[in-house]
Amino acid sequence: MAAKIVLALVLSLLVYAVSGETNPSACIGSAQQCRLQRLRTVEPTRRWESEGGRTELWSESEEEFQCAGVAAIRQTVQPNSLSLPNFQPAPMLVYIEQGEGLMGLTYPGCAETYELETSQELSRRRSSQMAQLQGERSRRSDQHQKIHRIRRGDILAIPAGAAHWSYNDGNEELVAFAVMDLNNHANQLDRRFRSFFLAGGEPRQEHMEGDRERTRQRRSRQQRVGFQSLFSGFSEELLAEAYNIPVNIARRLQEDDSQRGIIVRCQEEMRRMIRPDEDRQEGQRWLNGLEETVCTTRIRHNLDTQSESDFVSRQGGRVNIVNMHKLPILRFMDMSAEKGHLFPNAMYTPHWSMTDNRVVYVLRGEARVQIVDDNGNNVFDERVKRGDVFVIPQFFAVTSKAGNDGFEYVTIKTSGQPMKSPMAGYTSVIKAMPIDVLANAYQMSLRDAQNLKNSRGHQSFLLSSSRSAS
Amino acid sequence: MAAKIVLALVLSLLVYAVSGETNPSACIGSAQQCRLQRLRTVEPTRRWESEGGRTELWSESEEEFQCAGVAAIRQTVQPNSLSLPNFQPAPMLVYIEQGEGLMGLTYPGCAETYELETSQELSRRRSSQMAQLQGERSRRSDQHQKIHRIRRGDILAIPAGAAHWSYNDGNEELVAFAVMDLNNHANQLDRRFRSFFLAGGEPRQEHMEGDRERTRQRRSRQQRVGFQSLFSGFSEELLAEAYNIPVNIARRLQEDDSQRGIIVRCQEEMRRMIRPDEDRQEGQRWLNGLEETVCTTRIRHNLDTQSESDFVSRQGGRVNIVNMHKLPILRFMDMSAEKGHLFPNAMYTPHWSMTDNRVVYVLRGEARVQIVDDNGNNVFDERVKRGDVFVIPQFFAVTSKAGNDGFEYVTIKTSGQPMKSPMAGYTSVIKAMPIDVLANAYQMSLRDAQNLKNSRGHQSFLLSSSRSAS
Amino acid sequence: MAAKIVLALVLSLLVYAVSGETNPSACIGSAQQCRLQRLRTVEPTRRWESEGGRTELWSESEEEFQCAGVAAIRQTVQPNSLSLPNFQPAPMLVYIEQGEGLMGLTYPGCAETYELETSQELSRRRSSQMAQLQGERSRRSDQHQKIHRIRRGDILAIPAGAAHWSYNDGNEELVAFAVMDLNNHANQLDRRFRSFFLAGGEPRQEHMEGDRERTRQRRSRQQRVGFQSLFSGFSEELLAEAYNIPVNIARRLQEDDSQRGIIVRCQEEMRRMIRPDEDRQEGQRWLNGLEETVCTTRIRHNLDTQSESDFVSRQGGRVNIVNMHKLPILRFMDMSAEKGHLFPNAMYTPHWSMTDNRVVYVLRGEARVQIVDDNGNNVFDERVKRGDVFVIPQFFAVTSKAGNDGFEYVTIKTSGQPMKSPMAGYTSVIKAMPIDVLANAYQMSLRDAQNLKNSRGHQSFLLSSSRSAS
Repeated sequence: MAAKIVLALVLSLLVYAVSGETNPSACIGSAQQCRLQRLRTVEPTRRWESEGGRTELWSESEEEFQCAGVAAIRQTVQPNSLSLPNFQPAPMLVYIEQGEGLMGLTYPGCAETYELETSQELSRRRSSQMAQLQGERSRRSDQHQKIHRIRRGDILAIPAGAAHWSYNDGNEELVAFAVMDLNNHANQLDRRFRSFFLAGGEPRQEHMEGDRERTRQRRSRQQRVGFQSLFSGFSEELLAEAYNIPVNIARRLQEDDSQRGIIVRCQEEMRRMIRPDEDRQEGQRWLNGLEETVCTTRIRHNLDTQSESDFVSRQGGRVNIVNMHKLPILRFMDMSAEKGHLFPNAMYTPHWSMTDNRVVYVLRGEARVQIVDDNGNNVFDERVKRGDVFVIPQFFAVTSKAGNDGFEYVTIKTSGQPMKSPMAGYTSVIKAMPIDVLANAYQMSLRDAQNLKNSRGHQSFLLSSSRSAS
Repeated sequence: MAAKIVLALVLSLLVYAVSGETNPSACIGSAQQCRLQRLRTVEPTRRWESEGGRTELWSESEEEFQCAGVAAIRQTVQPNSLSLPNFQPAPMLVYIEQGEGLMGLTYPGCAETYELETSQELSRRRSSQMAQLQGERSRRSDQHQKIHRIRRGDILAIPAGAAHWSYNDGNEELVAFAVMDLNNHANQLDRRFRSFFLAGGEPRQEHMEGDRERTRQRRSRQQRVGFQSLFSGFSEELLAEAYNIPVNIARRLQEDDSQRGIIVRCQEEMRRMIRPDEDRQEGQRWLNGLEETVCTTRIRHNLDTQSESDFVSRQGGRVNIVNMHKLPILRFMDMSAEKGHLFPNAMYTPHWSMTDNRVVYVLRGEARVQIVDDNGNNVFDERVKRGDVFVIPQFFAVTSKAGNDGFEYVTIKTSGQPMKSPMAGYTSVIKAMPIDVLANAYQMSLRDAQNLKNSRGHQSFLLSSSRSAS
Repeated sequence: MAAKIVLALVLSLLVYAVSGETNPSACIGSAQQCRLQRLRTVEPTRRWESEGGRTELWSESEEEFQCAGVAAIRQTVQPNSLSLPNFQPAPMLVYIEQGEGLMGLTYPGCAETYELETSQELSRRRSSQMAQLQGERSRRSDQHQKIHRIRRGDILAIPAGAAHWSYNDGNEELVAFAVMDLNNHANQLDRRFRSFFLAGGEPRQEHMEGDRERTRQRRSRQQRVGFQSLFSGFSEELLAEAYNIPVNIARRLQEDDSQRGIIVRCQEEMRRMIRPDEDRQEGQRWLNGLEETVCTTRIRHNLDTQSESDFVSRQGGRVNIVNMHKLPILRFMDMSAEKGHLFPNAMYTPHWSMTDNRVVYVLRGEARVQIVDDNGNNVFDERVKRGDVFVIPQFFAVTSKAGNDGFEYVTIKTSGQPMKSPMAGYTSVIKAMPIDVLANAYQMSLRDAQNLKNSRGHQSFLLSSSRSAS
């Protein structure tokens, strides 16, 4: 009898203990931790399929991303599809891996300086196309903020809280890989990945009932269900009043049609419609006041321009960098990027970053990559290939050796002015030390120490394949 | 028998588990968390009654405040009462809701440039008031740092660690609402609310015994007991030596008279005594060196000046802002404030803040406020009224609609250069997007999309009441 | 029977609960906490003995250090011994307590502007020392980055991620005390102490087997074992290729000879070898580009120069300060230091720091130190002596009184522009307040209040011993 009471007690206690077990998880994600006994190439945490494309998330809950304080997204947009307007709570760099398209980035207070049809063009068209005027009436007077032409190889800088959309007006998929810096000072929320949408929403399992208000209230009591338009959280009367529109139109702002998701297919005519003013796009018109610093700042830099490579080695490869000196907005965003192309069997010198955590996204070819932690432990030793994503924590030593087909990658960094410390080559820490120090540190002869310093000649960062070593 | 042993084991285990339950709470308050399934208007966490007034604290332990990394205080000072000198570990903006008074803000190294009686005035007085000279002897030569006249509508900027006191020399209660930014880079302690007092102390339940030293030592072993003067933690001999005063006077520095608390009633003559040099108060005398940047910087800005309103709408209301451009010290403090007055039934456009968390304090009237999180969940839908306090997390969308008597509020923000992104009106994100994008995003006709962009005409931020919507 | 089952259940549950107990510790160290009911002088957490000296660590896991976000190291290097090249994930200030030596600090991209033998000197030597040329062949052409002569009293500024080594070329032990600011924005890893070595390693308990690769892999699966060279985590083939050297030489980079540790004894000739170019050492040659800002910046400041003391009191003592105005690199590192010498029985005024946490290292003599927290609790009341280390949290009030032999200390601070607020003396917060405020705050007469303000005359910070108080 006593045993039964005890048994009941034990069972209830067991339930208690198990539920208690989840308590410590209150800490997970809350504070930065870098317990990285082993790093991995990280697979996407979640995938969403939308009508017009696919979204993949590497969430900050992955150990490597948590340490680096970042999250990553890859978006694949079908031709004639629109990635719906959204913004993030942290600055974000986007790399366009494939395709081309248009991107709108809206910034509050900037003028709508772009008209679809300028009055001049319009008068020209008027004489020849009188018959079509009727159909274009509604678009003729449209003004909007700058639209950017985006292309493969572009890095796009998206400040925290700035709403953006993109549209694939090309013939192949538009693929973009983005990293956001959740640790950035611009983010005053916690370190969780969040995305705020101004339209659309991910499919949900709940029935959409007639009583919209009840649905809204029920939803607000639920846990995170994923992406939903901000408009769906306001009451329709307030929206109707805010926009001074009929309630039935206001409802269209809230509608989350689970068939469409967050990337939608467009009416066919969209493809002919919006065009950036290509000539003016990256021209730098300096206006007065706020506009000069924010509204006209460049946000785009192409990393595929060979003539602008920062490191070029005939045998090793080339590296293009974009930092705050090339793209001034990166000073405020405190991020930067690098695209590298290693020739077959070339090496990237062993080095560590003095300034930033890095997310590497493999574009082409493959490489053997090794990463070493502060205890001299090898924490990553993998052959990485196209589509792989991995994190290199700040200060950790890393080297990579391209495979037989070479190696191309893009790296996004959490500093606007990144600095590396190479361990081998002309600019290395070894070259900077006196021979006597090397000889005593490594218990080698002065001749070996001298050889250690000089055997790579003037090569730096990118090292040609050398078979003499084996 | 075995059962009894087991029972004992279970019970001890139960005790263990329950005590273990508190372990995870070691995390609470330690790292920023924003799990805000539902926001509320927040009631004060603690209240203290002092001889000369009342202090109310909204502690950082409230979920909303914890997310925003802030704490708030409201202080009500009776006429002829003195809020004792204290300082905080984070920068603080104070809004004077009611009354008037004097405030001293001391900054180390700044000159005592204020004399109670200047030599010129004194010589005038000398001839006519010879008889009174005797009684004023002790005050005649007093020099001290600048004293500020403070009035209803003022925002006062108090840097981290700067000691301040205030005195109500008016005839009504002096009411001040203050927010401190615990996440600010100026705070290198943890994110807990703390207040360091240079005099006074809150009532405690312990007996004050003759043996002062034992009391001090016992106290030092206790947990947080609340506000106590810093002097009470030093030994009286060291204090006496530091000030070169008799020990019995040093004891007066330590005395915590539990009758008085942290706001004390003054001797009647105080009211006539100290006066800021009104003419010079906000005049900007630029001296050389340190004084130019710190000692003579303005710390006060009045938000009630209609002629200086930043947004004015004939039908909507008006908004006064103070940021780092108007009050340069806010550049270093990285905070700012806004006071708004919405006319009856007017709306504040739906918007999100790109830069800061906000604490809103309702001054007059009422409004319906809705806040939406990153998943489109409505997390706040309340009719707020005078005295209510609520937090708007960065990036969360918010709108408010004034009641029939209008709505007045003051908002304190954790950025020195705040920026909002409006969702409706002339400067909105909707207006910035091409019609084609809107039509495809919301599945509406081009005509509806055009109407969505333009129906608010040139209205921005403050939207007049529109009944046409329903 | 049932009881037995229950017993088994209970026992398994007990095991579960005990293991569960460690879960909350996942939080420890992750987020800053300042629960400082009692501060202590802190003993080193760990000690390492190396062939050429001793290393002591005050880890960030100590409660006081955790609150301040710092870690500290003391290194004792024997004559003719070399502290092996290493770097830290946070900026570090080093104080040279004893001895002298050479320090190399390498910065990527800076030129190797130092030659062991310049061509001019060489030609001179050539004529007289033809016979010795043979033996010096290997060193003649060595170029390396700047080497700094370091001496007792020096503060050295080591940026995050910059590799450094030091060599004792004197006749007594070289003793250095260093504090690193783990909370610094330059550190994007977590807040744990880490040290990355480029050579050497601490003794480990594992057998070194022939199969090097297996050893490496096994090691990588282990928990933190302490300092090991970064090279030991790379595979020897990659190292050989990176340096274009034979594999057997590459192995020398990886070798962790457990007999030697992280400070090694040098071949005798080392002592004659490397010498800084003394004349040019602290001369400021301003070059163009990067070098101007980083490569030629001064990193050394001597705190023993009496003529440069910042506070001098004939009866009290003197204080030397180095901040970002004296050593510009401290602007970027956001750290500073102070060395003080109090005469017998003199006092350091009670004060609080408005800007920084502080680590105090006692050099000579002794003092009674009292620290008071925000609740007026005395949290530290000790007689500190040579070698003691303690933390003064930001905003906490502190005072100290030298013993009969005086008191010398060095303090390292987590702000590049530190500011104190004194509570007694000419520049104190008490002096800054009107007499009427003091009289009402402390319930004392106007005369006593005036005395409180003025009794220390023009003394400030350092207060002479006064026996008049007792």
